[in-house]
Amino acid sequence: MVTSAIVNTYPLSSYTFGTKEPKMEKDTSVADRLARMKLNYTKEGMRTSVDGILLRVNSQVQEHNHPHILLLQIGNTFCKLPGGRLKPGENEIEGLKRKLSSKLAANSPGLQPDWQIGECVATWWRPNFETIMYPYCPPHISKPKECKKLFIVHLSEREYFAVPKNLKLLAVPLFELYDNVQRYGPVISTIPQQLSRFQFNMIQP
Amino acid sequence: MVTSAIVNTYPLSSYTFGTKEPKMEKDTSVADRLARMKLNYTKEGMRTSVDGILLRVNSQVQEHNHPHILLLQIGNTFCKLPGGRLKPGENEIEGLKRKLSSKLAANSPGLQPDWQIGECVATWWRPNFETIMYPYCPPHISKPKECKKLFIVHLSEREYFAVPKNLKLLAVPLFELYDNVQRYGPVISTIPQQLSRFQFNMIQP
Repeated sequence: MVTSAIVNTYPLSSYTFGTKEPKMEKDTSVADRLARMKLNYTKEGMRTSVDGILLRVNSQVQEHNHPHILLLQIGNTFCKLPGGRLKPGENEIEGLKRKLSSKLAANSPGLQPDWQIGECVATWWRPNFETIMYPYCPPHISKPKECKKLFIVHLSEREYFAVPKNLKLLAVPLFELYDNVQRYGPVISTIPQQLSRFQFNMIQP
Repeated sequence: MVTSAIVNTYPLSSYTFGTKEPKMEKDTSVADRLARMKLNYTKEGMRTSVDGILLRVNSQVQEHNHPHILLLQIGNTFCKLPGGRLKPGENEIEGLKRKLSSKLAANSPGLQPDWQIGECVATWWRPNFETIMYPYCPPHISKPKECKKLFIVHLSEREYFAVPKNLKLLAVPLFELYDNVQRYGPVISTIPQQLSRFQFNMIQP
């Protein structure tokens, strides 16, 4: 794991984007999702999930090198961070690399990005089989149903991403996420606060 | 500076509280405060300020050791973190210790708490001479007017605090701060998210 108060970011022009076969969501409704979560809980206990925060700068002049975060858009509105559920007993860092490759890398082993997993910047808890999560385990909750950790992912200067055809990869500026819980939800909309302690080192090759 | 993913917290019963002479606010209105900020900017450039996040647990059973943050209440509603403005060129860590002693320590040098300044957990920027701040320097703003950093302050097992008579020291649980921008403002209400990556090691002496 890499820990540093400085995060190197590269412009969009450093990256190449392709597509790959669709990765469909496992559930077609929120109710289905919560029901599957409940079933898995009885088999495996608390769900642990890991998401990656991938940063880049937009080198267009009008953006003034403001940091952007990569989000996957499903359909026309719902956005999520790349990541997902760990297998029981799986290491967080290795599990996040597996999930990032599944969502963002080409199927060819030679084209796997060199995922450098950085610091954990937030932990969210799901107390019940409901959509609401908190950035702490609430008092009185002795058996939370999910613990989700968000990690910074450091990118190399050049990478090739392959995005599943049913998803769109968006680069969203911090100022668009900030204070926008309606659009992005409580987890993603407070990423600007989580990142505020870092210095972004904008690299223009 | 101390950096660690683990924060030790002690119950309220470890601490002794006294009072000292009032510390009045320098300004009697928000307009006065912004005018003074503007005047200081012309003399000294960007204002830099540092605030401390002091944590403790409440050992009462119904609180389940949920972490609490110490806030200073002025009048009946306004709450702030202990801290304040650095002198031009002053070191952040030394300046924060000076501010914490001024706000929370007895005047006797023998009763100074051993302030252990930990990690910076957030940075906020004030782009204009206005109350609004952002957790990033907005694009197009080349001369921000203030940069405020929030640091974790690790407390020893026993401390003596002396609180100015015109202020009240409150211990506010994370669940009260969370999603409560109306009462605590954008900086304090997102402290739960900033702290979510830490493990709190609850010490019961």
